[in-house]
Amino acid sequence: MQDHEEPLSLVLFSGTDDKLNAAAILAVGAAAMGRPVNVFLQYYALRAFRAGTLRADHALASEATEALSPVIRAHGTPHWSELLRQAKDVGEVNIQACALSMDMFRLKHDDLDPLVDGVEGVTAFYLNAGQGHMVFI
Amino acid sequence: MQDHEEPLSLVLFSGTDDKLNAAAILAVGAAAMGRPVNVFLQYYALRAFRAGTLRADHALASEATEALSPVIRAHGTPHWSELLRQAKDVGEVNIQACALSMDMFRLKHDDLDPLVDGVEGVTAFYLNAGQGHMVFI
Amino acid sequence: MQDHEEPLSLVLFSGTDDKLNAAAILAVGAAAMGRPVNVFLQYYALRAFRAGTLRADHALASEATEALSPVIRAHGTPHWSELLRQAKDVGEVNIQACALSMDMFRLKHDDLDPLVDGVEGVTAFYLNAGQGHMVFI
Repeated sequence: MQDHEEPLSLVLFSGTDDKLNAAAILAVGAAAMGRPVNVFLQYYALRAFRAGTLRADHALASEATEALSPVIRAHGTPHWSELLRQAKDVGEVNIQACALSMDMFRLKHDDLDPLVDGVEGVTAFYLNAGQGHMVFI
Repeated sequence: MQDHEEPLSLVLFSGTDDKLNAAAILAVGAAAMGRPVNVFLQYYALRAFRAGTLRADHALASEATEALSPVIRAHGTPHWSELLRQAKDVGEVNIQACALSMDMFRLKHDDLDPLVDGVEGVTAFYLNAGQGHMVFI
Repeated sequence: MQDHEEPLSLVLFSGTDDKLNAAAILAVGAAAMGRPVNVFLQYYALRAFRAGTLRADHALASEATEALSPVIRAHGTPHWSELLRQAKDVGEVNIQACALSMDMFRLKHDDLDPLVDGVEGVTAFYLNAGQGHMVFI
């Protein structure tokens, strides 16, 4: 069906491990269906993609209770960065850092993990999004 | 108009009462306009739909101040679970639990409130979403 | 391209300065590309648009660490309210307060900043959204 070839575009704002995992699940699912996936990294999500920090503890959303956190942490799915790597292996996944957030945190492309393909502005992100779904996480 | 018959698809991640209420308002409004509504329950939102817990206090978003919380709590709209029930009465509302989140929290379909129609993966969710709006809450 | 003339519709729920800034960047970018922009203000975002409060400190998302907050605060982009003003200057930006949230906080149209064009329900918001992107922030 034509609609499933439309891109999925994710604006990632939050940098907690649970939201990054939810985003990675959406990305890998869309990639496996043959949909192009565009990821735009802003604010706290961008910081989670700095080189050497992907596997660090990025905390959980504030609504995660103390009782719940170890349950979420113990879940046996691959790490979100590994899910994104798999998504790149099976499909067309384009991960871009937001130029404004890069400037805010004084980051250069070299400061980011190789999973990040480049740096762009919001206009380029819109152009790639086309008529597909756009989601803010 | 054709576009208003496109589905509204909600990925519910947060399980606080304010976000669940915002989601339910979007759902009931779309259902009343004749749009199919798909709801996909993940993480904290899934836990809010466990049998016997819908009317429990699910807290508010972390930005709710102490002064604001009683104002929000006192507002006279129906509870979000009642709004979703109304949405099901007037339209086609399909509420599915995310299979991965079910596994994470070791939940079975029987553990969930009857408002939840089933358990599915992200691929099924995408297939139902078609070209309609997709929103992450 | 036709798809870029489709509206961008933002449901603003959060009222923290970082999320409002992320929303304003999306709005001004879309407006500059000639896309109509619809903004629907709910809950905490609505409160941030009360007259006289736009430039107040609306805090940051709960995941902003103490080390990060001054960096975000010091960033030299215009304030989000100024970005929205610019978006209105260059394009067609329609900012509406959610009628239910207005009722919840006992607000009248006069209580809001002039940036807000009116008060509407979710049905009107959907009608304006058409087939464009819809994002919840």
